[in-house]
Amino acid sequence: MLEHATKIRVRYGETDQMGYMYYGNYAEFFEVGRVEMLRSLGLTYSGMEASGIMMPVLELHSKYLKPALYDEEITVKVFMAKMPGVKIHFKYDLYNEKQELIHVAETLLVFINMKTNRPCLPPQDFIDKLKPFFE
Amino acid sequence: MLEHATKIRVRYGETDQMGYMYYGNYAEFFEVGRVEMLRSLGLTYSGMEASGIMMPVLELHSKYLKPALYDEEITVKVFMAKMPGVKIHFKYDLYNEKQELIHVAETLLVFINMKTNRPCLPPQDFIDKLKPFFE
Amino acid sequence: MLEHATKIRVRYGETDQMGYMYYGNYAEFFEVGRVEMLRSLGLTYSGMEASGIMMPVLELHSKYLKPALYDEEITVKVFMAKMPGVKIHFKYDLYNEKQELIHVAETLLVFINMKTNRPCLPPQDFIDKLKPFFE
Amino acid sequence: MLEHATKIRVRYGETDQMGYMYYGNYAEFFEVGRVEMLRSLGLTYSGMEASGIMMPVLELHSKYLKPALYDEEITVKVFMAKMPGVKIHFKYDLYNEKQELIHVAETLLVFINMKTNRPCLPPQDFIDKLKPFFE
Repeated sequence: MLEHATKIRVRYGETDQMGYMYYGNYAEFFEVGRVEMLRSLGLTYSGMEASGIMMPVLELHSKYLKPALYDEEITVKVFMAKMPGVKIHFKYDLYNEKQELIHVAETLLVFINMKTNRPCLPPQDFIDKLKPFFE
Repeated sequence: MLEHATKIRVRYGETDQMGYMYYGNYAEFFEVGRVEMLRSLGLTYSGMEASGIMMPVLELHSKYLKPALYDEEITVKVFMAKMPGVKIHFKYDLYNEKQELIHVAETLLVFINMKTNRPCLPPQDFIDKLKPFFE
Repeated sequence: MLEHATKIRVRYGETDQMGYMYYGNYAEFFEVGRVEMLRSLGLTYSGMEASGIMMPVLELHSKYLKPALYDEEITVKVFMAKMPGVKIHFKYDLYNEKQELIHVAETLLVFINMKTNRPCLPPQDFIDKLKPFFE
Repeated sequence: MLEHATKIRVRYGETDQMGYMYYGNYAEFFEVGRVEMLRSLGLTYSGMEASGIMMPVLELHSKYLKPALYDEEITVKVFMAKMPGVKIHFKYDLYNEKQELIHVAETLLVFINMKTNRPCLPPQDFIDKLKPFFE
């Protein structure tokens, strides 16, 4: 089980006239959360793309428990519960500054070989870095 | 059962460097789809807010079957399967220009009285306009 | 002198908690406006990219005269005052539903050969389609 | 003369299919830069709105010198050259990780009393905090 937390502050441009963070903008918070989880292991998503593998999203499931408000520093906790194969699953718990759980989400992504445009296994260094957490 | 279709063209700013529409930008397509469904009935979301009721999103579930590409005119089909109470459920099927189903999604929203900040029933004109479709 | 008008409705996700369209979101309106101007001539920006030429923006100048509000259908008038060379200049006048001028802007873009990553002249069909307007 | 620097990493969702940060997304970087400049003085924009004053943007001028690329940590330097009156002017210099100047911009904003919807002077604590820098 892998776990990582990143703090992201809600920008004015991410709010809507309801005074909440717009419901479509959470997806970027998840993206930043999982990219920072990978970076904490010494992996970068940009490096993966440079090596010819990209990771499009297949599924997104989101529950909006409380609004994220302008200028709040949101804690994005990311969880990887099992070793990825051709697909990789992330869970997210978002907390506001009062430590209230405001959002839970899951995403499923797939590794795609950019030359063949077909699903593939993650790069070897990716596997090597993740393996110790799932043994 | 209510059904409505809206066409929305993918903007350049909505793509990402993968050459796909970014996965967070579908949420705006759903928003436009449901707002245009309501408009087709003579209802506007801006009018609802002006009357003191807003509709934040509680849940979002998305499956990305094929990418939406730059400049494609996407058909957003929206479905309302049952008469809303304090909550309202929408389903979405997205088609590209080749009429391929590229995305399916569901959202659950809630009517909120902006004065009390509590869930409430939809406004009466909303109920009157929708009722004939669910009898 | 070339002139073209496109109507774009302000999405909820484009507003901010001030109740205005967020100031960064006008750039997409200009993009849609100039792309639709080109389409009206039988040219597509996607076709230009497919032929190996892209058009990044070099300069943007915007004056916000009145806010664009949620659900308003904004008229984006686009003007091309002279035949493009390696650079292309567009002006924009935006009007709200009351026909009030709410925004004026200008952008300067450059044609880039994607192989050499160097500025270049526009493709021949582009020149052919535009020439009649500047003679 | 006031000066402040903030680092912001380019998100995947902020890129476009050119592989550059989309030209409309710089506006959020300026927003974050000026908000963090104010925070460094003990002022928050959310506090200002809570006190009944908002700061819409009147003008934006941007020059795109080099692209901002995915995952780069951009340094946003913000400059305030003179004491604000009813209007406030900011300049921005953006640098990439190689310390190359990639973007220069300016924005003009106005203080608006949210009750009267008229321009107004900044709040007193705002004036008090800024004054020492312009004497």
